[in-house]
Amino acid sequence: MEATLNMIYDTVIIRFSGELWLKKVWTRKQYEKRLARNLKQTLKHHQVSYNELVRRHGRFYLKTDSAVDAAQTLTKVFGISSVSPAIEVSPNLDEVIEKSLFLAGSLLKEGDRFAVQCKRVGKQGYSSADVRKLLGQRVLDEFGEKLDVSVDLGSPDVVLGVEVRDEQAFVYSQTIDAAGGMPLGVQPKLVGLLSGGTDSAVGLWLVMKRGSPVVPVYFDNSPFTDDAATERALNVAKVLFEWAVGFPRRVYVVQHGENLKQIMETHRKYSCLLCKRMMYRVAERLAEQYRAEGIVTGEAIGEQASQTLTNLRVLSASVKEYPVHRPLLGFDKAETEAIARKIGTYEISGTKAASCGAVPYQPSTKAKLEDVLRAEEKLDIEAMVERSLESIKIIEL
Amino acid sequence: MEATLNMIYDTVIIRFSGELWLKKVWTRKQYEKRLARNLKQTLKHHQVSYNELVRRHGRFYLKTDSAVDAAQTLTKVFGISSVSPAIEVSPNLDEVIEKSLFLAGSLLKEGDRFAVQCKRVGKQGYSSADVRKLLGQRVLDEFGEKLDVSVDLGSPDVVLGVEVRDEQAFVYSQTIDAAGGMPLGVQPKLVGLLSGGTDSAVGLWLVMKRGSPVVPVYFDNSPFTDDAATERALNVAKVLFEWAVGFPRRVYVVQHGENLKQIMETHRKYSCLLCKRMMYRVAERLAEQYRAEGIVTGEAIGEQASQTLTNLRVLSASVKEYPVHRPLLGFDKAETEAIARKIGTYEISGTKAASCGAVPYQPSTKAKLEDVLRAEEKLDIEAMVERSLESIKIIEL
Repeated sequence: MEATLNMIYDTVIIRFSGELWLKKVWTRKQYEKRLARNLKQTLKHHQVSYNELVRRHGRFYLKTDSAVDAAQTLTKVFGISSVSPAIEVSPNLDEVIEKSLFLAGSLLKEGDRFAVQCKRVGKQGYSSADVRKLLGQRVLDEFGEKLDVSVDLGSPDVVLGVEVRDEQAFVYSQTIDAAGGMPLGVQPKLVGLLSGGTDSAVGLWLVMKRGSPVVPVYFDNSPFTDDAATERALNVAKVLFEWAVGFPRRVYVVQHGENLKQIMETHRKYSCLLCKRMMYRVAERLAEQYRAEGIVTGEAIGEQASQTLTNLRVLSASVKEYPVHRPLLGFDKAETEAIARKIGTYEISGTKAASCGAVPYQPSTKAKLEDVLRAEEKLDIEAMVERSLESIKIIEL
Repeated sequence: MEATLNMIYDTVIIRFSGELWLKKVWTRKQYEKRLARNLKQTLKHHQVSYNELVRRHGRFYLKTDSAVDAAQTLTKVFGISSVSPAIEVSPNLDEVIEKSLFLAGSLLKEGDRFAVQCKRVGKQGYSSADVRKLLGQRVLDEFGEKLDVSVDLGSPDVVLGVEVRDEQAFVYSQTIDAAGGMPLGVQPKLVGLLSGGTDSAVGLWLVMKRGSPVVPVYFDNSPFTDDAATERALNVAKVLFEWAVGFPRRVYVVQHGENLKQIMETHRKYSCLLCKRMMYRVAERLAEQYRAEGIVTGEAIGEQASQTLTNLRVLSASVKEYPVHRPLLGFDKAETEAIARKIGTYEISGTKAASCGAVPYQPSTKAKLEDVLRAEEKLDIEAMVERSLESIKIIEL
């Protein structure tokens, strides 16, 4: 089926994300350049061949013999709202109708209900309504009895779309939603705390969606967790990297178990906060090293004991030079999970791995910064940060 | 219609938000207490009378003669997922069927398609499937010919719902979605920067949804804006307060025009950053004064020149003791607007008001902190903050 459709189509219509239209012309031009580069890299990475990528009529058109595969592949490029595999045709009405009928013949099945849509820009001597009316009638003439098809504008099985733009026209059927956002790379980097769980994956993905490449850092808490936890995090990273083709595919793994052991010996009730403050400090040093502009985490207000607003303040206070960005602050768990399903990380994050054995039975929900600072006095924080940085293994995925 | 339905129903089924079930029992009990208080205050505020609010079977049941009005009113209370006006009945099967038929008779119109749903907990000697089958048949017997109604499980016009819980049963039709989240007040306060525009309203609402009461601060930029801008912000605040019944309805209005004038004389390219850094500082002082745990804004990555990650870092650096929370970081404009429509602020934020006349033609998108700090050296920051605080008018809405 897909092979056949690949043969029918010769173009992918690529529609820009609404975000790009909010920018001034100069900025948008820059963004489009970046977008074109990301689109090409993604096609190359997936070995989808194409002839050219054309910018016209406020869109990109990809000329390719693998339009169905290309369209599916490109839905993971940030900065576009949707894609459609299409057939290019001259704006001559007869030709538009003929090609549309050809497409209809390839798609319609016994008993299907169909609808015709048309958008038109330029002077062609016919209106959008003309196209809808004529094409609708011709489809009924041709397939009405043969396949028992009928018109249904409300919930059609097959949509026949026609787009006429000055001296070009396109006929298509599917409009596949993409993720929107801005082209990856139009914003500076962020260092992202990646745990392998649902939340951090979505938090990192959301800033990527807004154009920021993420440097993912995983803190290996063994012996308080197991190898499955590390593997899970790396698998999540792999999925995130599918949304960032053309950017580094490196995960920074920090050996954090020894830190955690020392923390547990110091203050049981605050151990999660002390642990996270340590993670933030290491992330801050990495931000400095890799010229990132901040840290991003998957924390949501009140989701865990360490994430009450009181405790988030205590956590943020551990980094002085960089902001901690938390795109999930206002999300309910179900909302985060819905995005994780869309990204493709949900199932991986749900795989079995030991949860952290260092979490106390009654973690503090209202820690006082002065108490936390006092607890930290017993630790050689600077040495711990240095050792953590030295322990880093860079995993290329 | 509503008056009639109010007379039919005697109960509102109030279903807890999924968030509450993620909490340990002790925490959930606390949250439920707060939720009960918020529900009661909201009913009182809207002068909807009721007899009692009962906690049972992991839900709240409101006993009232104004069930339709009450249900609608309660959709603006955070911490519940949905509500249904209902009729309470004994779990005796005959009585369940009889009351359901009575409800069906009140709701079904000529040609309607209906579906029956049933959930059951406890021992009643009949199954959920029995209820669905029997009730479906009885509705067809009674109304099939008379009103030409038919069964449609896929997209029914009328749903007949039956919920059997041990010694009680409820019949209902509508399930009205609520906002989810956590009961307002289970988290500490945040100081919220409210501009009257779409984004800040949604940003503040999102942290409220997670349980944090917001202290809204509006910066009056006149003469660089007009009175319509102030009025718009106050109108937005009024809508937000509808989601926070029982909490203070105060907006803190800061006279910011003089600050802005001085800033414009200092550094044109950075004026938006200097302006916002000043706002943050005033907000920080208010957080201190009103025991809030941080600041919340409507900033999204890259939406405006001042919101690039580089510039957000420069902004965050102006507050040292409190975190700046930005729940919209990962949102596209269209996503923010969708929430604004749901909240009820979208139209107000779209009303005409002068946009800030102090925005430069080419604002910096990659400010360096040291340059910004140098620009600020020419300003008496401390005096500006003090004057801003002294200028505050508290508006009770």
